[in-house]
Amino acid sequence: MKVDGKHYRTIWVAENNDKVIRVIDQRHLPHRFVIEDLCTVSDMVCAIREMHIRGAGVIGAGAGYGMYLAALEAAVANENDFMTAVRKSADSLIATRPTAVNLEWAVRRQLAAIADVDSIDDKIAIARRTADTIADEDAEWGRRIGLNGLAIIEKIAEQKQGEPVNILTHCNAGWLALVDYGSATSPVYAAHDAGIPVHVWVDETRPRNQGARLTAWEMQQNGVPHTVIVDNAGGHLMQNGMVDMVITGADRVTRIGDVANKIGTYLKALAAYDNNIPFYVALPSSSFDWTMRDGLREVLVEQRDENEVKYIQGAVGDSIETVLLTPKDSPAANYAFDITQARLVTAFITDRGICGASEESLMKLYPEARQS
Amino acid sequence: MKVDGKHYRTIWVAENNDKVIRVIDQRHLPHRFVIEDLCTVSDMVCAIREMHIRGAGVIGAGAGYGMYLAALEAAVANENDFMTAVRKSADSLIATRPTAVNLEWAVRRQLAAIADVDSIDDKIAIARRTADTIADEDAEWGRRIGLNGLAIIEKIAEQKQGEPVNILTHCNAGWLALVDYGSATSPVYAAHDAGIPVHVWVDETRPRNQGARLTAWEMQQNGVPHTVIVDNAGGHLMQNGMVDMVITGADRVTRIGDVANKIGTYLKALAAYDNNIPFYVALPSSSFDWTMRDGLREVLVEQRDENEVKYIQGAVGDSIETVLLTPKDSPAANYAFDITQARLVTAFITDRGICGASEESLMKLYPEARQS
Repeated sequence: MKVDGKHYRTIWVAENNDKVIRVIDQRHLPHRFVIEDLCTVSDMVCAIREMHIRGAGVIGAGAGYGMYLAALEAAVANENDFMTAVRKSADSLIATRPTAVNLEWAVRRQLAAIADVDSIDDKIAIARRTADTIADEDAEWGRRIGLNGLAIIEKIAEQKQGEPVNILTHCNAGWLALVDYGSATSPVYAAHDAGIPVHVWVDETRPRNQGARLTAWEMQQNGVPHTVIVDNAGGHLMQNGMVDMVITGADRVTRIGDVANKIGTYLKALAAYDNNIPFYVALPSSSFDWTMRDGLREVLVEQRDENEVKYIQGAVGDSIETVLLTPKDSPAANYAFDITQARLVTAFITDRGICGASEESLMKLYPEARQS
Repeated sequence: MKVDGKHYRTIWVAENNDKVIRVIDQRHLPHRFVIEDLCTVSDMVCAIREMHIRGAGVIGAGAGYGMYLAALEAAVANENDFMTAVRKSADSLIATRPTAVNLEWAVRRQLAAIADVDSIDDKIAIARRTADTIADEDAEWGRRIGLNGLAIIEKIAEQKQGEPVNILTHCNAGWLALVDYGSATSPVYAAHDAGIPVHVWVDETRPRNQGARLTAWEMQQNGVPHTVIVDNAGGHLMQNGMVDMVITGADRVTRIGDVANKIGTYLKALAAYDNNIPFYVALPSSSFDWTMRDGLREVLVEQRDENEVKYIQGAVGDSIETVLLTPKDSPAANYAFDITQARLVTAFITDRGICGASEESLMKLYPEARQS
């Protein structure tokens, strides 16, 4: 997608040095556009854990490139025990964030790829190629999600007779969350590019405000009409006919269709259900976890630092300030995700196509997962 | 309730000058405890509209004292057309905030009371006495809501065998929202004072953070264990058995039991319903509107300035800063209330007692409303 008219992905190999990975450091958005160089595994671990990059797709790609950096480091530091060093890096990458499935998926894919060749040089070359493939696939999946979701928006647009299709989204499942295009936003961009009038209600998405900071910024950069709302507002909008569809992303979807996504997704799904509004979850194939069934019982929901709730960052003129929102000594809790059960999901929009939220429908679209 | 160990109401006549009304200016909490002197009707209009005071009970009391100030002003400025001047002030007080019923109720009560006497001095004396009565009644209603709600908490506490009763609340229906005790918080304080272990999940309540700023501060000042959460978190907590009951306040309740309350209340009610958790609405009798039935169709939901969503205020060391949260040019929408239909409400906790959320139950507790 475009920033000030120039195309960017969210993660790439530096133009002038192929041992350096570049990412858009999302912490500074929307106030500053900062590109960060990541030179070591611990740079990447920090970037994922501290959410310089966040979103299932891009942290998967980050883990892929992290493994490439791990191979480079292992070759230099510890040639005798290359794989031990690489596996240690793999563990530290997986440990950064527990909820998104893409991270572990990318690391395991790298470990399997590296295992197939003998020489260290070949392992490095394979790790680089695999990382590029993971990133390319993620971008391509984002693009296809857009095309598949476009059909749904087109259908609603027909009924609206020229009025904009009102789409509510939570968090940032935008191109910043993938390598390109996004998951939830990709159909929106596809519709906008196709000349269908759309308007996006952007949930601010406390505590880290990925909606107010990132989705709103993406929409603005790409000229999509949008309005920022507090997370509390979506129910009221739905009750009053002001939302035609909801699209969110997902950090992990189980084989029966339970969705782990940003905290608050469940509340919006309940409201959509209560008001007969379709609730779609858009995700790349890499975000399914075929080993899990019951999301509430099986998905580990990450708890983060209470200070992400108590303090917030924003712009004061040209500078960025952090302010305290609560009494200094009041404790806070910070659960990062929640589970939306399959019963509340209208359908999944994936790179392979659209399918209902049930094991039966999912197995039709992903027959290879029947045996896993 | 107590602030630094000293008892305060939220609004009172100045100790040294009975033509001045004092209020706790809630805009500065929790970082600073500021008492503001209101000397004119336009001071009171500003205090209500700009939310120096907010909450159904205290803005009702504010409107009552506003009418006393109106009588004082009308006597000085315009003795020939006293009632015209008073009525003009009444209109400006009613226009400050459209959703809470208490405001108009208090103004009309004053107009009726003033109409009963002839001399201007008597009208002023009556206005003062009526304002005091409205405030005293509100405090007393808060106290009784606490006693009535205590019975519900006691029952849950019996099942929890010494574990704290986890109560989720949204916004601030605390003593800051009434003249004293609060509505939603009054049963919590009563339970805490009775030695029942309670723990309160405090929804931060964007955009104005009445939970994170006010409810958390109240809890802390009164020693009640509590944890601040983002508005997105309640559903997750309810899904995981971490909430025993929800209590919110109300700005207006219709005769069939539909509840207008702070934006986001509806989402919590949906989650409580989905997880079989009792959802109580605590309110003084003055917050019922017997003239309305269908909340979604009939209650006017206030829209406020978009900058309340785009900017937020917090503490940086000893100073208070306002920071921008969104892209500067992204539009925002700011609906202040939503409607929770009666079907989602377990029961009302009022100063008269507890009753189910139906016209039939309400008419049993308020037989005088049958004919209205």
